[in-house]
Amino acid sequence: MAYTAPTGETSFILNELVGYPALQRTERFADTTADVTEAILGEAGRLAERLWPLGAAGDRDPARLENGRVRTTEGFAEAYRAISDGGWIGLAAPPQRGGMGLPQCLNVAVNEYLASACLALEVKLLLTQGQIDALEHHGSEAQKALYLPKLTTGEWSGTMNLTEPQAGSDVGALATRAEPQADGSWSVTGQKIYISWGDSDLVENVCHLVLARTPDAPGGTRGISLFMVPKVLPGDDGGLGPPNTLRVLGLEEKLGLHGSPTAVMSYEGARGWLVGAEHGGMAAMFTMMNNARLGVAAQGIGLAEAAYQHALAYARDRRQGAVGGTGAIVEHPDVRRMLAEAKAEIFAARAIALACGVAIDEADATGSDDWRARAAFLTPIAKSYCTEVGCRTADSGIQVHGGMGYVEDTGAARFLRDARITPIYEGTNGIQAIDLVGRKLADGGEAAFRLIDEIETGAETARRPVPDMARSVWSGAESLREATEWMLAQGIETRLGGASAFLNAFALVLGGHFHLKAATRGGAARRALAEVYVARILPRAGASLAAAQAGVDDLFALSVDDLG
Amino acid sequence: MAYTAPTGETSFILNELVGYPALQRTERFADTTADVTEAILGEAGRLAERLWPLGAAGDRDPARLENGRVRTTEGFAEAYRAISDGGWIGLAAPPQRGGMGLPQCLNVAVNEYLASACLALEVKLLLTQGQIDALEHHGSEAQKALYLPKLTTGEWSGTMNLTEPQAGSDVGALATRAEPQADGSWSVTGQKIYISWGDSDLVENVCHLVLARTPDAPGGTRGISLFMVPKVLPGDDGGLGPPNTLRVLGLEEKLGLHGSPTAVMSYEGARGWLVGAEHGGMAAMFTMMNNARLGVAAQGIGLAEAAYQHALAYARDRRQGAVGGTGAIVEHPDVRRMLAEAKAEIFAARAIALACGVAIDEADATGSDDWRARAAFLTPIAKSYCTEVGCRTADSGIQVHGGMGYVEDTGAARFLRDARITPIYEGTNGIQAIDLVGRKLADGGEAAFRLIDEIETGAETARRPVPDMARSVWSGAESLREATEWMLAQGIETRLGGASAFLNAFALVLGGHFHLKAATRGGAARRALAEVYVARILPRAGASLAAAQAGVDDLFALSVDDLG
Repeated sequence: MAYTAPTGETSFILNELVGYPALQRTERFADTTADVTEAILGEAGRLAERLWPLGAAGDRDPARLENGRVRTTEGFAEAYRAISDGGWIGLAAPPQRGGMGLPQCLNVAVNEYLASACLALEVKLLLTQGQIDALEHHGSEAQKALYLPKLTTGEWSGTMNLTEPQAGSDVGALATRAEPQADGSWSVTGQKIYISWGDSDLVENVCHLVLARTPDAPGGTRGISLFMVPKVLPGDDGGLGPPNTLRVLGLEEKLGLHGSPTAVMSYEGARGWLVGAEHGGMAAMFTMMNNARLGVAAQGIGLAEAAYQHALAYARDRRQGAVGGTGAIVEHPDVRRMLAEAKAEIFAARAIALACGVAIDEADATGSDDWRARAAFLTPIAKSYCTEVGCRTADSGIQVHGGMGYVEDTGAARFLRDARITPIYEGTNGIQAIDLVGRKLADGGEAAFRLIDEIETGAETARRPVPDMARSVWSGAESLREATEWMLAQGIETRLGGASAFLNAFALVLGGHFHLKAATRGGAARRALAEVYVARILPRAGASLAAAQAGVDDLFALSVDDLG
Repeated sequence: MAYTAPTGETSFILNELVGYPALQRTERFADTTADVTEAILGEAGRLAERLWPLGAAGDRDPARLENGRVRTTEGFAEAYRAISDGGWIGLAAPPQRGGMGLPQCLNVAVNEYLASACLALEVKLLLTQGQIDALEHHGSEAQKALYLPKLTTGEWSGTMNLTEPQAGSDVGALATRAEPQADGSWSVTGQKIYISWGDSDLVENVCHLVLARTPDAPGGTRGISLFMVPKVLPGDDGGLGPPNTLRVLGLEEKLGLHGSPTAVMSYEGARGWLVGAEHGGMAAMFTMMNNARLGVAAQGIGLAEAAYQHALAYARDRRQGAVGGTGAIVEHPDVRRMLAEAKAEIFAARAIALACGVAIDEADATGSDDWRARAAFLTPIAKSYCTEVGCRTADSGIQVHGGMGYVEDTGAARFLRDARITPIYEGTNGIQAIDLVGRKLADGGEAAFRLIDEIETGAETARRPVPDMARSVWSGAESLREATEWMLAQGIETRLGGASAFLNAFALVLGGHFHLKAATRGGAARRALAEVYVARILPRAGASLAAAQAGVDDLFALSVDDLG
């Protein structure tokens, strides 16, 4: 089958649902006209359609380590060059560093398309974008001048080195150390794991941003600093100098994402430079992370869309049993249900992620704290919900295929294997939920209630054209308000027992909001899809809200031994 | 880690929840005393614990085809011999054919343990059991005398040949044909796919039960007959004669279950013998299938239990972040939630499957149509729900592991890869749902309402000791009654749009019923687990019941083109 980039879906959501036209009226994004937007989406879509075969190729012919060097899948080098040359790495990067200066919401769309085509390659782009963002916010002028142009053109690429065997979600437990040198550089020593694209033959230099502990640093996260540790040391002329003392010890054998080399990295007195303030590593890491979290949301949507198109093509083609219409299995009600539910969820997920992108851009354009708070609130929701939709759609895509779904040749299983990393990396979905009910409710619920107000206002507006759906969404929002109030009245520990369910419910009701808006602004098909969502998906919010308010006592009433 | 067979869970459910003591009082199962039961569960549990390493071994070192012969994983031969010698293949087979004549409910438990240890090997046992059952009900006396003893001892094994490339769920579309021969045998020609254990080096003969079409047979399922086509023709003395004209053309490369060779079989004028009446193949197939469906439910539970124990061991061991108690991640509320929810769902699934097993046994012991109808009603529910719990638990097990869950070495990912076949084979879960709202409601809802009455009576009884939980379960049952009445008032097409959701809701409320009973008959830990189920899992029934009654019009309001 072929993949078709869903540019029409993106445009509709941007223009009708998430306030993109208002963003275009800001001074900051005045150049991003309708024509520019259409050109960007069209161009990126066509590239993704062209790169589509690489998703399967990377799976069949994984990245491998040969004599300490990473060899990548055939075709990846040309593809990465095409991505670089198209300017896609620097889409949202500042123009004075070679970027296009376009809004993040377009980056979300472009990254979604590229992730549909080949997640293994797209993750390399995403990490480099995160590094550009981190350097832009925390690097020195010299660092920006040296690294940003090379990263933006794709000559060099970036990695993020957080995890160590004993320090995963608990970043503060890391042991890699950095010793100051006479010349102002640092000597970095330690081992890092799960380093996506820790090395490759696609670029001439790999720039590692490494979290490490300086001498006499305080314990935990407060004592962590960030270092730039390039694979090849930059020469005095800005070109390439001698190799640094770092090595790839091995690549992980993973469930999926085989085209992406996941390295165990060893830093052996490697030369590095402090990025940002000493002990300020966590702040820089969060800049990288926040960008990456919305990027991972885009990956979830991309995987969902790819798996969905793949399953739909099969269902339209495969004939089994006597059914009406085209005679294909898509005419069987339960197959139609799986596909319709998937399409409805993908729509909701995409709208949430694009709304989050627009909020980031509005914050950037206006400096408004409200927009910033909205973006911060939507980020963990987008990351978790979109990645869960990615896995769920890949899973139902297998089911649509029946026995063929279990056979690797068909390709359906790969989407699930690839998608399964997304609820884990850049902060597990559990961590996102903790972030949501903790830090993101620390404003007394202001950002949450503002969103809920918006959903209810939307439902009021929709009451005349689509009364039943409007009532369901309004009532979902009202239950969400009660649950939010309940959360705010609890201590943090109690909130945590229902954190994931609360996040899920928030996403489901937001999805209902966007579907409702689409039903009133789109044609009959948009309204029909909204009906499916409201009848079959939105009711899950009720179940999630019950679980969200279950507290934590029941979980700990079971002792660890009781669990055994 | 090591696996511990959950014999205490099985015993508790059998003795306290699903009416096993009454079954033991029937004449048919009078010999299955408490001592016998304990010995069987203990012995099977120890065998499964011993075979546990083979699950990973089969995944790493898959079955492969060498010069037309299947070579199996090292260790499988000894293991299959141990399973055969233990008498486990014939556990529920009639004693006069070498079986133990024990109840099916014990078979469910034993198969669960063996599936936890090594699903790839257990599926071979399950298929042979299905064949024994089919021959017992449909074979001639001569066929029974020839095949049953060999199958029961494990010298020979059985396969089920239904699927062809163009005939999957639509069995009636099959094209394999059988021509009558002068000597009363038949010449079978055609190609079959997805034949689990189509060949192996573990047994001296493989007995294929093959669905085929006889000359001038009517179209569709009415014209299908069943044939026994052995790999090696039996000699006149009952020993082995010359090889039959059939071949393994290839093995599928699958997402999981690598230890089990899934063959493409070619029958090339192979000699076979009719089993049952000509054109009576579907009836015989359903005997095989029904047995196998409950067996697949046991596989789902087995995978869930294995994945759960694996995740719990990791969570008890892994330290991340400052938490109280043991300091391990099991103390984090969201990790604790994932584990507690998994344990609660596994309990519900196991109770449903064992209740189904007891109903089969009671039907066998008493000849009662009510028991038969109950077994028939519970079978699709058990098959679907247990296999979904298998996948869901394997999935949450990966999540508990964080990044480690995505790395194959850890072993967590394999459980998902292996489990993912179970919602597909022996009739997809969608087919189970169609069966439930179609054939299984064709009695006007009698079997359904009898179950719902039982749930409500149970809730009444529990009202004093656990009032809140009793109210939740009672109200779930009442909603289920309304949904069942709604289903009965609709035509079949309308029912199908909500079939999967209806099945899911029925399972969830049944799970609530068994948890409630456990809360009143077990200790504090059982009550605490029931609280988790009622607060966090049971509310999903409401969402499912809403979707169950959504009808089908919304699905078809979206045209096939709208889905694209």
